[in-house]
Amino acid sequence: MKAEALALRARDHDLEILDQRWLPAEERWRRIGGVDEMIDAIRQLQVRGAPLIGVAAALSLAQSALRGASNETLRKESSDLRASRPTAVNLMRALDRMDALLAAGAPAPALAAEAQKVFDEDVDLCERIAAHGEKIFSAGDRVLTHCNTGGLATAGRGTAFGILHKAHELGRGIHVWVDETRPLLQGARLTAWECRRRGIPATLISDNMAAHQMALGKISKVIVGADRIAMNGDFANKIGTYNLAVLCFYHRIPFYVAAPGTTLDPDCPNGREIPIEQRRPEEVRGLDTAFQSVSWAPDGIDVDNPAFDVTPAELVTGWILETGVYSLTDVRAGALKNAAGGSR
Amino acid sequence: MKAEALALRARDHDLEILDQRWLPAEERWRRIGGVDEMIDAIRQLQVRGAPLIGVAAALSLAQSALRGASNETLRKESSDLRASRPTAVNLMRALDRMDALLAAGAPAPALAAEAQKVFDEDVDLCERIAAHGEKIFSAGDRVLTHCNTGGLATAGRGTAFGILHKAHELGRGIHVWVDETRPLLQGARLTAWECRRRGIPATLISDNMAAHQMALGKISKVIVGADRIAMNGDFANKIGTYNLAVLCFYHRIPFYVAAPGTTLDPDCPNGREIPIEQRRPEEVRGLDTAFQSVSWAPDGIDVDNPAFDVTPAELVTGWILETGVYSLTDVRAGALKNAAGGSR
Repeated sequence: MKAEALALRARDHDLEILDQRWLPAEERWRRIGGVDEMIDAIRQLQVRGAPLIGVAAALSLAQSALRGASNETLRKESSDLRASRPTAVNLMRALDRMDALLAAGAPAPALAAEAQKVFDEDVDLCERIAAHGEKIFSAGDRVLTHCNTGGLATAGRGTAFGILHKAHELGRGIHVWVDETRPLLQGARLTAWECRRRGIPATLISDNMAAHQMALGKISKVIVGADRIAMNGDFANKIGTYNLAVLCFYHRIPFYVAAPGTTLDPDCPNGREIPIEQRRPEEVRGLDTAFQSVSWAPDGIDVDNPAFDVTPAELVTGWILETGVYSLTDVRAGALKNAAGGSR
Repeated sequence: MKAEALALRARDHDLEILDQRWLPAEERWRRIGGVDEMIDAIRQLQVRGAPLIGVAAALSLAQSALRGASNETLRKESSDLRASRPTAVNLMRALDRMDALLAAGAPAPALAAEAQKVFDEDVDLCERIAAHGEKIFSAGDRVLTHCNTGGLATAGRGTAFGILHKAHELGRGIHVWVDETRPLLQGARLTAWECRRRGIPATLISDNMAAHQMALGKISKVIVGADRIAMNGDFANKIGTYNLAVLCFYHRIPFYVAAPGTTLDPDCPNGREIPIEQRRPEEVRGLDTAFQSVSWAPDGIDVDNPAFDVTPAELVTGWILETGVYSLTDVRAGALKNAAGGSR
C-alpha cells in the first residue's frame, strides 16, 4: 500500500491521518495503530468527509490484515468501522468491497490491494469531476463555495473544491469566495486553509455577506458539494446551501453542485424524502470544537440546528458528476437515474 | 433627572450604564463619573445603539452641569462627545439641543430638563413605533429579527424589537426567530438575552439557516431595524439584512423595516448613495469581543467585512415609523419625504 493524500498517508503497515480538528492552527498528524484507533478518529471528526472516511476505513482494515489479524478479527473490525458513522454511504460501499474479500477468505495482500484500489478510485473520481467541472469557468470568474469539499474530504483534490483547484492549476485566473459555514466553520477553518495551501486567491466572509457581494457583482458563480442527490435533482448539503441557491436565483448567478455518482440515491425520488439530522444546540449557542469551547448565547436558549438543507432542482444550473455536467433538462430526461444505474 | 432604561439608569447626579460587552454572561453596571468616562464607554461599545448613545451623551452632559462644570467646560465636553462616534446621527441631534442651551447660557437645571426630554422623547418614539407596528401581526406569527434593536439600543422598548415586545405584551402569541448576526453576534448575545428577559418565546439559529426555516413554512414575517433610510425607501442596516429581504421575496414572506423618523435622510435620494463602512478583518477571522478573542481562520487570510448592506425599496413590504406604516405605493408617492420634513 502506498497512498498519500492531503489528510492521510499510508505505506505498508503505517497509516497516519491529519487531525483536522486542529486546523488551521496546527497540522497534527496521528499515527493509527489499529482499527480501534481509526474508529476513534472517525468518531472524533479527526477524519471527516464521506469519501475520505470510506478510504480511511478500507486502508485501516488492510493495515490490520497486513499486521496478521485473523479473518474473524477482521470481520469484527469491519462491522465496528461501519458503526462509527452509520449515515456515511461511502463508508458502507468501501467496506462492502472489503467484506466480499473477507467472505472469500482472501489473504492480506489481496485486502491491501483492494484498499489501495478504493483509494486510487477516489483520487480518479475527483480528477474526472474536476476535468468536467473546470470547463464551466470563464477567465476571471469569482466563485463562492460553501463548507469543505476539498482534499480534506476526499483522497484526491476534492469535488466542488477540486474543480476550483483544477481551474486554478490551469491558470483560469479564478478568485474564490469562502463563506465561513456556521456553525462548524468548515469554510473559515478548512477551505480557507486549503486555498492558502494550494495558492488559490481567496477571500473569507461571514455567511450573511454573500447576498451583499452578489448585489455588487462580486460573485459570478457558486459551486457546492452534495451529501445526497435525489433522482429528480433535489439534493441535500450542509446547512446554508439552499440560502445560496435562492440568492443565485434572485441575482441570476449560475449555481452548480458537484459530487461523485456514489452520492446519487436511486431510492430517493425527491428532496422531500431526505431526512435532516438535528445536531447539538451548543454548536449554535457558541463555538463548540476541539480547540475551543465558548458559549456566547444565553444559557438554555432554544436552538434549531439542522445539519443539512435541501435545494430543489429548479434552482440548480448544473450537476457535475464524474460522467459529465448535466442541465435541468438532462435531469428531467432521466440523466441522474441513468448515472445512478451505471455507478451501482 | 430620573431615567431608567434596560441599559441605563440616571437619578440626579448619578449615572450608570449596563456594559453590554459582557452580555449575556454577566450584567455588569458601570458608574459614570464624568463625561470622559461616558466617552470611554461609547468608544468601547459598552453603550451601543444609535438612539441610546444620543440619550446617554445628553444625560452625561447634564450630570456634568449638575456637578458644577463651567459653561466653557461643558462646551468642550459636548464637542468631545460628538467625536466619540462621528457617524451616529442621533448623537449629533441630541447634542445640538444641549449646545443650543449652552450657547444661551442656560443653567444646570435647564440642561438636566433638556436631557430628560431627550430621554423621554426616545421612550415615546419607541412606544409610537410599537403601537403602529404591532398591528401587522396575526395570532401565532413566527417572526424572524436580525441584530439588536431593542431596549439595549434605545431608551425605550426598541424599534423593530419594540414591536415584537409590544405584540407579546398584548398576547398576540408570537414566536421570535433570532438569527445570530455574525460577525458581532448581536442576535445571539443581545436579542436572545432580551427575549428571555421579556419572556418572549424565541429560537436561535445561525444566519445561514433562515432560508431552510422559510422553505419549511416556519417563518411568517421578518422585521428589522435601519441605520439610514433613503428618500426612495432603500435602507442601510446591519450586514445580513439584504440577504433576509431576498429570501422573503423568494418565499413571499412579508418583510418590514422599523425605525424612528430621525433615521430618514432627506439628503440621500437612494441606497446607492449610502457609504458602507468596512470593519476589521479579525472580526470575521474569528471571534473578537471583550469577553473572548479567538481566531479560527488561517492567519492573514484576506477578508471582506462590510458592516452594513443596502436593501432596495422594492423588497420591503412596509416601513414602520412613529407616524405610521407606509407601503411601497406610499413611499413612491413621497411619504418618506413628507415624514422627513416633519421630523426635521
